[in-house]
Amino acid sequence: MTAVNAVNRRMALRRYPDGMPRPEDFEVLEGSIPDIADGQVLGRAIYLTVDPYIRVHISPSMSVGYAPTTPIGAPIPGEAVLQVVRSRHPDFAEGDFVAGFGGWQDYCSLPGDSLRRLDRSLAPLSAHLGSLGMPGLTAYAGMTKLAEARAGDTVFVSAALGGVGAVAGQLARLQGCRVVGVSSSPEKCVWAVSELGYDACLDRTAPDFAAQVAAACPDGIDVDFENAGGEVFWAAFNSMKAYGRLIVCGLISGYNLDAPPPGPDMTPHLLRYVAMKRLVMKGLMVADYWDLRPRFLEEVGGMIRDGRFRSKEYVVEGLENAGQALIDMMHGRNFGKTVVRIADDPGSSPP
Amino acid sequence: MTAVNAVNRRMALRRYPDGMPRPEDFEVLEGSIPDIADGQVLGRAIYLTVDPYIRVHISPSMSVGYAPTTPIGAPIPGEAVLQVVRSRHPDFAEGDFVAGFGGWQDYCSLPGDSLRRLDRSLAPLSAHLGSLGMPGLTAYAGMTKLAEARAGDTVFVSAALGGVGAVAGQLARLQGCRVVGVSSSPEKCVWAVSELGYDACLDRTAPDFAAQVAAACPDGIDVDFENAGGEVFWAAFNSMKAYGRLIVCGLISGYNLDAPPPGPDMTPHLLRYVAMKRLVMKGLMVADYWDLRPRFLEEVGGMIRDGRFRSKEYVVEGLENAGQALIDMMHGRNFGKTVVRIADDPGSSPP
Repeated sequence: MTAVNAVNRRMALRRYPDGMPRPEDFEVLEGSIPDIADGQVLGRAIYLTVDPYIRVHISPSMSVGYAPTTPIGAPIPGEAVLQVVRSRHPDFAEGDFVAGFGGWQDYCSLPGDSLRRLDRSLAPLSAHLGSLGMPGLTAYAGMTKLAEARAGDTVFVSAALGGVGAVAGQLARLQGCRVVGVSSSPEKCVWAVSELGYDACLDRTAPDFAAQVAAACPDGIDVDFENAGGEVFWAAFNSMKAYGRLIVCGLISGYNLDAPPPGPDMTPHLLRYVAMKRLVMKGLMVADYWDLRPRFLEEVGGMIRDGRFRSKEYVVEGLENAGQALIDMMHGRNFGKTVVRIADDPGSSPP
Repeated sequence: MTAVNAVNRRMALRRYPDGMPRPEDFEVLEGSIPDIADGQVLGRAIYLTVDPYIRVHISPSMSVGYAPTTPIGAPIPGEAVLQVVRSRHPDFAEGDFVAGFGGWQDYCSLPGDSLRRLDRSLAPLSAHLGSLGMPGLTAYAGMTKLAEARAGDTVFVSAALGGVGAVAGQLARLQGCRVVGVSSSPEKCVWAVSELGYDACLDRTAPDFAAQVAAACPDGIDVDFENAGGEVFWAAFNSMKAYGRLIVCGLISGYNLDAPPPGPDMTPHLLRYVAMKRLVMKGLMVADYWDLRPRFLEEVGGMIRDGRFRSKEYVVEGLENAGQALIDMMHGRNFGKTVVRIADDPGSSPP
């Protein structure tokens, strides 16, 4: 039997963040290794995910049905890449690599039926939390089911290198679209163009950012794949072409708001232009699209394996740094999809 | 040949309204009867339309491609019911009843190809500017092409008795939906229920209006047919069910805003709920749906003729009162779809 530590560390909330999370909102707690019941497996986490939606789960004011608020002291929720160390489920054996909603902790017990087995031949394990994980599937669902993008369309991706955005942008490029991305530094923008194939990528910290968006989309935007909100959203919205589609997937700029920001109130402007330009705005949640996963893994996984599609993770080392990794991501200090490595990948060294 | 007056009166802008239009923003001017070229007809107006979208056309700050700003001194634009008094188009003869974009004036010259012939057997002439006109077609397009309403759905109609709303509400009822309307007085609400078949109709001037909306839609709203904006919009939005559709057709509450209203800014809230509830928001402009007109007239026209569908116009007498009629409509003082009668209907008295 695989050795299991005596202690299960978890990264928990010490208190609910007030606005932008701070390091002291988080703390590492220790507990015992969970038992497993029939049908469950015990997993040891190798990689944890750090995604913008986690901010929603740690805010009581933002809780809605789909996202119950994380209790103080409980592990921060999120998907993890796990290795099975005990199994009471017939489909899984010790040593298997899976992904499941284990949260930010060393060990978790999960129903085997909730796990997905990882195909290590496609990409490194970390990619299964990014381009081949929930963020990638989110982008795939948005681009294939909601965006209605046609070759030649201008597609705007508001977080060009993010877990979702990098996949959305590359899918749009492969559909023959002109793809304009946004990131938070000149270096990342250069990388988005040279490595991900964006036609243009704009630095949202530039003083003339909105004018740059208008200039980069001279014929307007057909599809806005929205993960930002705030000023980035408005720059795109004001350049939308008639009949354009806005895929509202994430709003990282709004996740630290516990109350609506000061005015003026721009909703009348928004609604007026939705009507006049016949825009279509569609909310996207990946939970509606689990059935797309096999096709997604075949298509995107195949392209990653063959080198035709880039997956870039920004790997932070150590469970104790997961809170800071979330903060850094919300400031745009990451370079790619953030994951936290909390244990060695036993398969990463040659046998 | 039909007699033609010596003078063509028009209701024009004296100046652009600042916020809510005032009577002194309008004036009646006189000019000559227009000539007609080959392919055109000269029409004498019997009924003029008064619709919320006219407010957009008389505001320089709101002009977008589809709605060029009306010049000072020019007739206010809008559809009219006309009788042909001269024709140089092979399809039209003197005496024919047509509708066309003649604007607020006694006489207009229009290309025959832009006119639609009116079927007087379906309904009184005035209805061809309402339930059988552009507003009715707008509602028909929204309910048949965008709303995706299924029997049992709750449909919310924010202007229950309006030119668009009365048709949307009745179509929704005929589709087996539960229909909740909004109007601006208890009397109108009673009428909407008893005559238009709304399941409930709420008075937007009630102090507890938002709570009434929530109570009248205990399972949430599947379709919001939006013609109001402002507080009525938010009452509906906050009751939207997951996967609900918002048809953004009109925003009468916002048409008098020359600048965004004071905050807080509710767009982050709006975008967050669009994502989390997977809402779909769709802009609607009738100009995209002229091809639906034959089917619309057959279906809705047939039901009006047979008494299964109600059309209610609020008839204001006299061109000189058209400006006030627009103001009254924006205050909700009308009772049904507003039209202005500026000449006798020669067919209205028995022969």
